[in-house]
Amino acid sequence: MDQPSIGDAFGEMIRDAYAVRTGIGPRPLAGGRLPRPVIEVIERDDGLINGAPADHYLDEPGDWQPWDRRALRLCRGRVLDIGVGAGRVALELQRRGVAVTGLDTSAGAIEVSRKRGLRDTVLNTVDEFSRASVRYDTFLLLGNNLGLLESAERAPVFLAALSRLAAPGARIVAQGADPYGTRDSLHVAYHQRNRERGRLGGQLRLRLRYRELATDWFDYLNCSTDELEDLVKGTGWRVKSIDGKDHPYYVAVMELDI
Amino acid sequence: MDQPSIGDAFGEMIRDAYAVRTGIGPRPLAGGRLPRPVIEVIERDDGLINGAPADHYLDEPGDWQPWDRRALRLCRGRVLDIGVGAGRVALELQRRGVAVTGLDTSAGAIEVSRKRGLRDTVLNTVDEFSRASVRYDTFLLLGNNLGLLESAERAPVFLAALSRLAAPGARIVAQGADPYGTRDSLHVAYHQRNRERGRLGGQLRLRLRYRELATDWFDYLNCSTDELEDLVKGTGWRVKSIDGKDHPYYVAVMELDI
Repeated sequence: MDQPSIGDAFGEMIRDAYAVRTGIGPRPLAGGRLPRPVIEVIERDDGLINGAPADHYLDEPGDWQPWDRRALRLCRGRVLDIGVGAGRVALELQRRGVAVTGLDTSAGAIEVSRKRGLRDTVLNTVDEFSRASVRYDTFLLLGNNLGLLESAERAPVFLAALSRLAAPGARIVAQGADPYGTRDSLHVAYHQRNRERGRLGGQLRLRLRYRELATDWFDYLNCSTDELEDLVKGTGWRVKSIDGKDHPYYVAVMELDI
Repeated sequence: MDQPSIGDAFGEMIRDAYAVRTGIGPRPLAGGRLPRPVIEVIERDDGLINGAPADHYLDEPGDWQPWDRRALRLCRGRVLDIGVGAGRVALELQRRGVAVTGLDTSAGAIEVSRKRGLRDTVLNTVDEFSRASVRYDTFLLLGNNLGLLESAERAPVFLAALSRLAAPGARIVAQGADPYGTRDSLHVAYHQRNRERGRLGGQLRLRLRYRELATDWFDYLNCSTDELEDLVKGTGWRVKSIDGKDHPYYVAVMELDI
């Protein structure tokens, strides 16, 4: 059986979700006739697969999870929205008059966020972009994007890149999910296997698939707030506050310890 | 990366879709908290993947496609619903007082169709079941299940099993989809590749995946009505009528040529 092609699976999915939501551009059809809902497929390296409707990437603030709305109030000054996707959050900040830049590694996502009106976008990795001379007051990681810390090895490298981009007094506002309350035996076994391999329990090895495309495999970290405290040690960042009202989801604010 | 386990992926999916629809039984949750829609994931052997919400397997007749409703009027006498799934169609026939048996190879599907009130069910393949001494007047293959003809090699074997189960004057009522009107280059290339390999253009090599489970790879045939005419030649069955009002979807009635 053929493997999928490596490509911008996320961007193609966002393009299609945008077409379905707006009627702009060719919409995916089944049998050339019936509307086909746009589904994000996520594979985990233990063989688990999950599909989820992609439409939420385009949700208006009224449809957001409450912790996302609360997180917006934690933004200060110039904002870098990391993993901007279809611009869901950045567009709302822009509407509110905030100076916001949307960064993504997906060309399709950047294209859609611009079509939707987002003015300042960057198609790049955080690492590459951190060589730029711009500075931000808030780094925003919503939609579970605290996961971009990836692993104990990667987290300090990622956080160092943010340090280089940080204006004095800068903060990170990041939404995470504590994975350890689950009673799902598949997940419990996965966490256990991870630990046996020296990985964090919630360190997921994933790839996205959409139609004929897949991303490369990547790590995506679900960690507890205790683990987060450990991860930031020695990076110059410290956890200043946790909004844990909607456990297992939380919004962490981190600040530079200087 | 680990392969999924081979198992009753379809049945597990139907169980979860039933739990979500009815609130009976444990519902799938994301993060142990947010309802997770039940998505059927279908992989094709060229690396294509598609997700689709599974809820339609439980749809009431008012939500059906119009060709399904028209197909019911074509049933006569005792009905064998092949690939009964969650009992969507068989339950409606039963409500109408029709003597209907639901057959499926998925234990989970049979369990759900029985929970929903379907009285007469068979957990078996058509081939094995055709050794039984029961006889049917109508073989019903809705939900695209003309696809169970699989291939030019398999179709006569499948149709011979139905012949063994056929009462005098029996008919097949089967819904198919003509795949050849597509302008999707992925599908056009797949049809071409199939033909180069001596397969029918719309002979799909698929597997279903749900969570950690996958089915084995199987053939599922989308064929034109011309191809269908060819496939039934010499099997004792002939195409009596085609309802093609909703192209590319069609409902074919086949009868024994004796």
